[in-house]
Amino acid sequence: MKEIFKLYPVGVVRKEGENVFIEIGDEYGDGLLGLEGFSHIVVFFWFHQNDTPDKRSVLRVHPRKDPDNPLTGVFATHSPQRPNLIGMTICKILSIRGNRIEIEDIDAFDGSPVIDIKCYIPSSVKEEDVSLPDWIQKWV
Amino acid sequence: MKEIFKLYPVGVVRKEGENVFIEIGDEYGDGLLGLEGFSHIVVFFWFHQNDTPDKRSVLRVHPRKDPDNPLTGVFATHSPQRPNLIGMTICKILSIRGNRIEIEDIDAFDGSPVIDIKCYIPSSVKEEDVSLPDWIQKWV
Repeated sequence: MKEIFKLYPVGVVRKEGENVFIEIGDEYGDGLLGLEGFSHIVVFFWFHQNDTPDKRSVLRVHPRKDPDNPLTGVFATHSPQRPNLIGMTICKILSIRGNRIEIEDIDAFDGSPVIDIKCYIPSSVKEEDVSLPDWIQKWV
Repeated sequence: MKEIFKLYPVGVVRKEGENVFIEIGDEYGDGLLGLEGFSHIVVFFWFHQNDTPDKRSVLRVHPRKDPDNPLTGVFATHSPQRPNLIGMTICKILSIRGNRIEIEDIDAFDGSPVIDIKCYIPSSVKEEDVSLPDWIQKWV
């Protein structure tokens, strides 16, 4: 598995006072057509501050940096340290003006590169079919 | 926005008859610790068959290749044609043996490179707060 894929930033997270935006690059603006029909988006961003070989080689963490949480493989978490630094979060759209999507909030830093946006469609997984480990229950 | 980020495949989708697996590379196996506490995972894969400059420059599509669906920006879809070829899907875990996660099914091809896995945690978005365009209603 030596192949490498290339990701191009398509936008950036902007936090301006109380307001939070996804600003899409002009060359990608055409990709927003029809987004106004959705209430929410899934935003994919890059944990760019962790883009070092050291941080990308971390495979086990205490989730949320809490030593009370058991040592856990990064693939069983949403940790910002992982081999590929993909962050994913669901955001409520407030408005779309040109290439700027105003969103309610995002758990990403100002300046985080945005690598993809998808429309949010509720999952068809039924709640009664979901199981979660004990450590995660406290923040669900 | 000329910066480029590098993605390394961490695994691959394997379809063997009726059985479907995510096979994680040996060097990433430590990242699976604790995954057995979850019923579902979010699998991120690469639409590798579309990794051409032409397909990555497509910004508007008729969703599901159905001409009856309105021309829509790729960021308002889950189309496999998009600037960054990230596919995302939620899968039910059947078993985990070593570096192989058996899953119920996946809407990715056999051989698709896996670029990340995250634990599945149900979204906190309330159903009554979600709006969707008409064209999508028929397949939700």
